[in-house]
Amino acid sequence: MSYENDLILKQARGEQTDRFPVWLMRQAGRILPEYRAVRNSLSGFKELVETPELAAEVTIQPVDILGVDAAIIFSDILVVPEAMGLEYQMIEKKGPWFEKTINSEADLGLISADIDVEQELKYVMDAIQITKRELNGRVPLIGFCGAPWTIFCYMTEGQGSKTFSKARKILYQNPEMAHKILNAITEVSIKYLKAQIKAGADMLQVFDSWAGILPPDQYEEFGTKYVSRICEAINEVPVTIFAKGAYFAREAFAKLDCNTIGIDWNMDIEESRRIVGPNKTLQGNLDPCLLYADFKTIESETNKMLKKFGNSRHIANLGHGVYPDTDPEKVKCFIETVKNFKIK
Amino acid sequence: MSYENDLILKQARGEQTDRFPVWLMRQAGRILPEYRAVRNSLSGFKELVETPELAAEVTIQPVDILGVDAAIIFSDILVVPEAMGLEYQMIEKKGPWFEKTINSEADLGLISADIDVEQELKYVMDAIQITKRELNGRVPLIGFCGAPWTIFCYMTEGQGSKTFSKARKILYQNPEMAHKILNAITEVSIKYLKAQIKAGADMLQVFDSWAGILPPDQYEEFGTKYVSRICEAINEVPVTIFAKGAYFAREAFAKLDCNTIGIDWNMDIEESRRIVGPNKTLQGNLDPCLLYADFKTIESETNKMLKKFGNSRHIANLGHGVYPDTDPEKVKCFIETVKNFKIK
Repeated sequence: MSYENDLILKQARGEQTDRFPVWLMRQAGRILPEYRAVRNSLSGFKELVETPELAAEVTIQPVDILGVDAAIIFSDILVVPEAMGLEYQMIEKKGPWFEKTINSEADLGLISADIDVEQELKYVMDAIQITKRELNGRVPLIGFCGAPWTIFCYMTEGQGSKTFSKARKILYQNPEMAHKILNAITEVSIKYLKAQIKAGADMLQVFDSWAGILPPDQYEEFGTKYVSRICEAINEVPVTIFAKGAYFAREAFAKLDCNTIGIDWNMDIEESRRIVGPNKTLQGNLDPCLLYADFKTIESETNKMLKKFGNSRHIANLGHGVYPDTDPEKVKCFIETVKNFKIK
Repeated sequence: MSYENDLILKQARGEQTDRFPVWLMRQAGRILPEYRAVRNSLSGFKELVETPELAAEVTIQPVDILGVDAAIIFSDILVVPEAMGLEYQMIEKKGPWFEKTINSEADLGLISADIDVEQELKYVMDAIQITKRELNGRVPLIGFCGAPWTIFCYMTEGQGSKTFSKARKILYQNPEMAHKILNAITEVSIKYLKAQIKAGADMLQVFDSWAGILPPDQYEEFGTKYVSRICEAINEVPVTIFAKGAYFAREAFAKLDCNTIGIDWNMDIEESRRIVGPNKTLQGNLDPCLLYADFKTIESETNKMLKKFGNSRHIANLGHGVYPDTDPEKVKCFIETVKNFKIK
């Protein structure tokens, strides 16, 4: 298909563009009053995720209101463990909560990789189809899933955690079981991403939110290994890997069969480029808290970041999801600054 | 004074020893049934912190029971903001909570650096004196405080947080106010550490628990700068700086006027040694979750870590505080393995 604006696809593939594309993680939701109006008309977050028309509506809002160069489907990484058998709740101001978790071999019966993802997660595919139709080629649509290690964390811990020590305990006490679970998640994730492509996703991002809590050798064995398998399985569209905090994995990531590596705001841009090499796009990495600063500072710091990326492959973004109390006008300032920056 | 065992002081000063000294962050408390017996006889955590005889008792427990090479005074980094004017509560299973926080210039009146630390925190000095008397030279006693940036986080955020975005917002919106607060904390921290030395502390550790959430340039301005000032002010005893997650600050830390740098379990040992150079002791960095493994694995992984430190300056420790549900027998296995490892 043809797009009015396919800057992000071009940068992901390493093609020349006049300016850098820009979008924000968590742009769909949280910060927009228009999102909250939709959200507040419903019983909860999950109802929004599971109602394709409304998920599509909030997916498109930031394209209309903020002027980003890509939409990302409004959904949650936890739809995958749920489809595999572990139902979750999203508790207001607390976060996700799973009634059942995997803690022993006996619990393995609670989950299955042998599922029809297109059926189980039909609401996501429907949302993607509606979004694509309504976007009508204005900008590409990003699909996504959680990385196997991060999904493993929730399946075993059952909720957010400062240390994820329950999840990490399994890696030491029963690594074979950990690999069984990670294999199952990987298998479903690949099916899920392929279904998203079939429904219309133009590019994909894999979020490894808890990558940063593992020692480097364990992340290699339980993290990168499975992310790599996903990268190898997906060849249809550009893939981005974002492993927050995993600065120690950048060398391994340079070898992944993917287009783009996300970097967080702790990671030095020049150093990351040196480690990853010239043949991958880097996405990021403005400090999300910078959007609390005044407009002038946002502009100058954004330009400073863009200059560091120079004329190398780059998709502008924050180094983390946008924080809920960010003023949308500040977000627009960031976006406009990127749009005004000419690649030399 | 003379010690039966001063391995840790020798390693901190770069003197030769036959084996590496070993202790654990959070060794006083949490994991020992003997600690819980004392703790449960009281109304709460703070009563224990503020009762010198009992604080001394739980400080010495790990020396007797686990056989560590140093005691660390049982206390909390939040006694400093409290002494400065912000009272805190420690809420069971939730963590610290401050009723009043600093969010504007007007709130600056809530805190003061012009305090008599020896009086305000007399219970800490008393606990140190009692501990020293009862240790009677068996092993050295470590005193500690939080780093200014970490104390700033609690003073402004008022509680733990995943992002500390409230604290971080101030750095962008009112950096001058941030520096005022950090200056005040630094001033009190130096007085506090000097009082601990006077009371008998043989070495000191500064904990920068939230160092890892700042972008490198901001950590330099709001973190390292104040840690450096503390290092320069303390010359009486060896000082350790542990800035969790601040891998990007290791180069700057190499220049600090301190003896020892703590490294967490994400940081590569050889790389850290390369960055920090040979003239500082490195402390750490076993993954705390490794103590969930079986005895054989704990032994082999501990030996693997020790070999990586080679014959360079090293104090063995975990890369983070020991987790509460760790089996004390596993902790002993770690300690015994270090004790049996001969430096070549």
